[in-house]
Amino acid sequence: MSPALRTFFTRDRFAAHNGIELLDAGPGWAKARMTAADQHLNAADVVHGAALFTLADLVFAVASNSHGQLALGINVSISYLKAARAGVLTAEAKEVSCNSKLATYTMEVRDAAGDLVALAQGTVFRKDTPVPA
Amino acid sequence: MSPALRTFFTRDRFAAHNGIELLDAGPGWAKARMTAADQHLNAADVVHGAALFTLADLVFAVASNSHGQLALGINVSISYLKAARAGVLTAEAKEVSCNSKLATYTMEVRDAAGDLVALAQGTVFRKDTPVPA
Amino acid sequence: MSPALRTFFTRDRFAAHNGIELLDAGPGWAKARMTAADQHLNAADVVHGAALFTLADLVFAVASNSHGQLALGINVSISYLKAARAGVLTAEAKEVSCNSKLATYTMEVRDAAGDLVALAQGTVFRKDTPVPA
Amino acid sequence: MSPALRTFFTRDRFAAHNGIELLDAGPGWAKARMTAADQHLNAADVVHGAALFTLADLVFAVASNSHGQLALGINVSISYLKAARAGVLTAEAKEVSCNSKLATYTMEVRDAAGDLVALAQGTVFRKDTPVPA
Repeated sequence: MSPALRTFFTRDRFAAHNGIELLDAGPGWAKARMTAADQHLNAADVVHGAALFTLADLVFAVASNSHGQLALGINVSISYLKAARAGVLTAEAKEVSCNSKLATYTMEVRDAAGDLVALAQGTVFRKDTPVPA
Repeated sequence: MSPALRTFFTRDRFAAHNGIELLDAGPGWAKARMTAADQHLNAADVVHGAALFTLADLVFAVASNSHGQLALGINVSISYLKAARAGVLTAEAKEVSCNSKLATYTMEVRDAAGDLVALAQGTVFRKDTPVPA
Repeated sequence: MSPALRTFFTRDRFAAHNGIELLDAGPGWAKARMTAADQHLNAADVVHGAALFTLADLVFAVASNSHGQLALGINVSISYLKAARAGVLTAEAKEVSCNSKLATYTMEVRDAAGDLVALAQGTVFRKDTPVPA
Repeated sequence: MSPALRTFFTRDRFAAHNGIELLDAGPGWAKARMTAADQHLNAADVVHGAALFTLADLVFAVASNSHGQLALGINVSISYLKAARAGVLTAEAKEVSCNSKLATYTMEVRDAAGDLVALAQGTVFRKDTPVPA
């Protein structure tokens, strides 16, 4: 991952507040993890859907900004596949399409056993400006 | 809002950790707010898409559990319409369909000026068990 | 509806092949109908989800091109709420957001009784070129 | 593909009316093709988004009914990645999750050059009844 990209995402305060750690990234992809703790649970004592979304959203943001052109989320669809409980959750984003204005990504979230717990797909609008230094 | 429903959602630790306050709810609907602070910002200094999602997700959860039958999220699609900055953000969920097994909701997120900043739609699976006391 | 917009959509051969009739449109909205016939049914003898989508998609296309600037679909999410059988189905698109590059719409599909059978939301990319004459 | 599954889907009149041919299927997956003709075009002379959706939807339906238990679509999200013109389009559905009540699939649509033109993800409700003979 380029130092500039890593530095930019150290400024993502919502991800930091929710304990998300960016692991690695490259052109069109990114990986992150979140160790499920009490702060991530919903009222039914499983990992909150919005916590899974937040983890998926970070890798979406990093992957879509990885080419150095500023990308803004347009939409995301997430499907919840399995309840997630304690342990380390990981997410990975992969680019499926990229042109000058739009790019689309899939995001997989897996639990400590490697089982898929959520699957998302999202699209960004690519601005004519670079990712801020 | 029924005292039982309110009590159940006081246990939503992810919503609490992110400063979301449930305002009111009734059969098939719910309202909540979140005062955008530094912890809600992304690397580009606007409110994080995942923070908007988290606010929308709470009203989705409350509205879909408001009939007393336990509801689990299956999928959510969110569209981001306008960048949100400082101030109070509010979300409202409305039921568009409900049968014995499935129910669907729309969630609107608005900024302090009343402008729509995100629009989501989501579906739940309704279990045969009541919302826990 | 402007004559130019109506003329442009008479060229929509997929909509015509599937019996969809554009009823009316204005800035940011459109209405259409489809009389459910044998050609619209799936293997289980109810109206095909893709037929409901096709009806919703036409009003999405007309509404998003109604300002005279060419619009291309980026993504659509559709939720199926109730099985639809024989009779006239109607769809309506409403604009929820529109800026120079992107615009978002909701599409409702109703059966002859007025019940909601499908709900969709979609976003377009607005090109810098006008709708062709 | 089991003869029963193939026979069931010969009754899909919307797919047949739109020239979609089921190629093959197995447990949790299916492939189909559609040769883009004039009837599949939109007003802008490219393959209609709803035609791409219809192709994706058939493989979604076949894959989700492939286990012999009747499956009904709950929701589908589709992203359009590239304009498709003349030639043979193919779609493939893959199961990403399946439990007793719900199952989720991804659907890829490719053009004659093998390029991805649309990507979808959808979820079904699995009824307690078998696929009709």
